[in-house]
Amino acid sequence: MLKNDRYIRAALSQPVDMTPVWMMRQAGRYLPEYRETRAQAGDFMSLCMNPELACEVTLQPLRRYELDAAILFSDILTIPDAMGLGLYFKSGEGPAFERPVKTQADVDKLFIPDVFDELKYVTDAVSVIRKALNGDVPLIGFSGSPWTLATYMVEGGSTKNFGLVKGMMFENPNMMHQILDVLADSVIAYLNAQIESGAQAVMVFDTWGGVLSTRDYQEFSLNYMKKIVEGIKREHDGQRIPVTLFTKGGAGWLELMAESGADCLGLDWTIDIDEAKKRVGDKVALQGNMDPCILYSNPQRIEQEVADIVGKFGTGNGHVFNLGHGIHPTIDPENVKAYVDSVHKHSTQYHSR
Amino acid sequence: MLKNDRYIRAALSQPVDMTPVWMMRQAGRYLPEYRETRAQAGDFMSLCMNPELACEVTLQPLRRYELDAAILFSDILTIPDAMGLGLYFKSGEGPAFERPVKTQADVDKLFIPDVFDELKYVTDAVSVIRKALNGDVPLIGFSGSPWTLATYMVEGGSTKNFGLVKGMMFENPNMMHQILDVLADSVIAYLNAQIESGAQAVMVFDTWGGVLSTRDYQEFSLNYMKKIVEGIKREHDGQRIPVTLFTKGGAGWLELMAESGADCLGLDWTIDIDEAKKRVGDKVALQGNMDPCILYSNPQRIEQEVADIVGKFGTGNGHVFNLGHGIHPTIDPENVKAYVDSVHKHSTQYHSR
Repeated sequence: MLKNDRYIRAALSQPVDMTPVWMMRQAGRYLPEYRETRAQAGDFMSLCMNPELACEVTLQPLRRYELDAAILFSDILTIPDAMGLGLYFKSGEGPAFERPVKTQADVDKLFIPDVFDELKYVTDAVSVIRKALNGDVPLIGFSGSPWTLATYMVEGGSTKNFGLVKGMMFENPNMMHQILDVLADSVIAYLNAQIESGAQAVMVFDTWGGVLSTRDYQEFSLNYMKKIVEGIKREHDGQRIPVTLFTKGGAGWLELMAESGADCLGLDWTIDIDEAKKRVGDKVALQGNMDPCILYSNPQRIEQEVADIVGKFGTGNGHVFNLGHGIHPTIDPENVKAYVDSVHKHSTQYHSR
Repeated sequence: MLKNDRYIRAALSQPVDMTPVWMMRQAGRYLPEYRETRAQAGDFMSLCMNPELACEVTLQPLRRYELDAAILFSDILTIPDAMGLGLYFKSGEGPAFERPVKTQADVDKLFIPDVFDELKYVTDAVSVIRKALNGDVPLIGFSGSPWTLATYMVEGGSTKNFGLVKGMMFENPNMMHQILDVLADSVIAYLNAQIESGAQAVMVFDTWGGVLSTRDYQEFSLNYMKKIVEGIKREHDGQRIPVTLFTKGGAGWLELMAESGADCLGLDWTIDIDEAKKRVGDKVALQGNMDPCILYSNPQRIEQEVADIVGKFGTGNGHVFNLGHGIHPTIDPENVKAYVDSVHKHSTQYHSR
């Protein structure tokens, strides 16, 4: 039984006493205690692969702030790494793969990783964190979307113009669909394993869906997220598991996303939340949508912005407060306190529970 | 008198015999003859600053393809460089400034550059190119938008998360407005000088407007582009000068942009052009909007995509065909031929002139 179930209720569009709040990348480099634990672990993947240390960093922001949810500390590229592509991190350049997917032969070698073998370190972390949370707040599990994972797998790392992955998509759509199919099946198995291990909600991060046209977004990203929504356990231990889809840059496609079967849609900050609410109606809850850069300012300005967004959403159910993207590493932790406290302070007036 | 005025007519929503086509960065690295001229010039800015060589690369794509417009070869950061910020190029990392704008004292030092002194190399290039074109097709002049220029000036170069420039915007909006004001006045003087020197159309590139919220986009980017539209000469030598605004990632704000007084709006590829046409009505022409990555595929696939976009726009005036962003450096020049020729081939049926 959850002591604080605001996040779950809001993501399922049920009444709450105040708007729940969390932050993407809330366990991260802006916290000195995170930097300390990471130094202790060695590199980033060693931290992800150590369930006790992953648990420690997951809990760190909850000790400082009255957050309404915890999110599993992990990387979005665990699945392609488990497929044998050889994930590593170039300093200053982000993630990269030793063996990117270039040819039909590379594609034919892809397989659904065993979530209790190659990915056991993730499900172990979920179990450890769930236990440590002791029912205080729910634990969110997550995965990258198939399209987003495919961009890294084909490009071999981060990319500015997506030339290789889109080149494959336009030149050889069948090959791209083969990659996305095995990824969708892998994500389903991965998220179900997280749910079985203790995740009480799940989120799919489609970081790069926004670089596609409307037609290509539907065919190469949204369709596979729909498959995931259909394939994952929506109930576990008698509790409903809310599913959130987040396409960064996807504000133009909210109506399409609202038909996916997801409970909640993540918003970046490029659309007003009242406008988004009007467009999706009561089909889904909304998560978002403060520009993470507001956190560079000061507590007064942050409070003003939070009040503005909470006011734009207004009365009614189905708002999970969040940033429109992950918190940046150089943010002052004091400013985060202003953010979290302001959401609770300013949202109570819009709720009657 | 222009021998081919399709681009001018379409940008002003007048009837044409077929849809005009050009490409952002059409004078660029994908062409072997460009790479040769650039090697001859030394570095990129030396090429921009040499009117004869800038003219040569401007004309190169017109010798290969039946393009309906030429665009001045230059950089978007000429104005801040002329303000004394010290533009240079880090290899592999793009443009940077030696003296970025950080403090109020830095802001107070900014001034409107003399377009016939510090920026004379640009107006000279315009005159030389206009003469060399000999009336074959119109010459488009351009500038970066004030917001886009400000991002580079405050960040000191390219940025992923816009923390410094947005930090200033949220923490000290007056300082940001002071920067944007001097930039808007500079852009007006710069574009008017280009028009006087021979540019027959102008375009404002708002490459980074799309990283803002709707409210901040209006206050910090669109308002200054409106000021520019109001401040530039809309007629020269008895000819109307079409003005195009392009905000990458701005599909959500087309209705707002259509009220700016611009003749034409540039679209990236994240919105269908029929949807965009419906939203702006007959207020403005539209330029775009093929995903530049289609050019990685093959002539058949490119022709199919061009036909699809031309068909989506359908009958009616006011379509300038373009990519949704600049052409990438590794595109096969043969594929560009398929792109240009397909626009003319497939659009004739929709025009009755």
